[in-house]
Amino acid sequence: MGTPLDRGTDRGTDRTRVRRLPELQVDDVAVLHGILDAGTVGHLSIVHDGQPYAIPVAYGRSGSTVLFHGSTGSRLFRTLAGGAPCCFTVTLLDGLVLARSAFETSMHYRSVMVLGSCTVVEDKLPALSVISEHIVPGRWALVRPPSRKELAATLVLALALDEVSVKVSDGPPSTSPEDAGFEPWTGVVPFRVARGEPIECEEEA
Amino acid sequence: MGTPLDRGTDRGTDRTRVRRLPELQVDDVAVLHGILDAGTVGHLSIVHDGQPYAIPVAYGRSGSTVLFHGSTGSRLFRTLAGGAPCCFTVTLLDGLVLARSAFETSMHYRSVMVLGSCTVVEDKLPALSVISEHIVPGRWALVRPPSRKELAATLVLALALDEVSVKVSDGPPSTSPEDAGFEPWTGVVPFRVARGEPIECEEEA
Repeated sequence: MGTPLDRGTDRGTDRTRVRRLPELQVDDVAVLHGILDAGTVGHLSIVHDGQPYAIPVAYGRSGSTVLFHGSTGSRLFRTLAGGAPCCFTVTLLDGLVLARSAFETSMHYRSVMVLGSCTVVEDKLPALSVISEHIVPGRWALVRPPSRKELAATLVLALALDEVSVKVSDGPPSTSPEDAGFEPWTGVVPFRVARGEPIECEEEA
Repeated sequence: MGTPLDRGTDRGTDRTRVRRLPELQVDDVAVLHGILDAGTVGHLSIVHDGQPYAIPVAYGRSGSTVLFHGSTGSRLFRTLAGGAPCCFTVTLLDGLVLARSAFETSMHYRSVMVLGSCTVVEDKLPALSVISEHIVPGRWALVRPPSRKELAATLVLALALDEVSVKVSDGPPSTSPEDAGFEPWTGVVPFRVARGEPIECEEEA
């Protein structure tokens, strides 16, 4: 299923080396970029008073940097702007792997975990256009650009793709002699995110 | 779009009160359960040496408890089993909200964030069947159940839905007088996760 990937290598740090199922770890920048480019939202996590918080966010990628935007009033974004350690995770769920045993039942997925600290982006407009084009290509040229006031209310952050873990699960179901006598259908049920027909609706003032 | 929800209420704690766009916070246990039941994977976050990590996991829901399973060899699961503070987030992306301005362009989503600490579930089989049935209803009765050895290698954890934040964004695009002269198509592009035709494949020993 797909091209063979460069797996199980270890260019990462001790914090990003995959310990569980290390054979699923992938060390290929094209795969890393492909996963980030295919995702729409990711989860940004921070620590506050010893408690982790993981919050869904939109993002974009520019080269080897991930970009985020949020309100200057957001605790998440203010904490990140202060250089707090963070984790950014993007997970694409590609399918269900239906094996003969409960134990070997699993999922096809591609996931990226980036560790690091964000920096504040001063030149906001180009970064915002990258995020917009990531989500709806071609839209940036059509909409009203941010006003000075809207820009002032927006924090734009960058996270370098320096300390990264990439995991790809795309194998067939596993079976073992213990499974003898159990004959459910086995294989993969693929998942796909479909964009439906656009729905026109009354705007809100 | 949908039934009116009980919004902006504040039964949560100071840690789960939504500060940004508080009008999107929902206080309705049926909505909470519905989001969890509709999701397939969530993200579990922990803190290790001051660094947050958010990792995709399968889960199931039994009443007001979320259940997880993982390897006894997993750092995430061993950390959680020790009672470490965690955050569990499930996000369903429902659509893109295309407004006239870049600033008001947004997404339809439903998200749940649960804070707390996990407890270890000793009676593993019923909990594993809940997780299995959540992902592929009807499958548990067909597959080989876990062996004693497989059960011993599995940690099952429970997280109570006590400290929870639920956010639902389902409104129309916003516009303002500043948008005059900008006439792109506006409305909502719905997202849907489609399960494709099953693919039979050679099993792996």
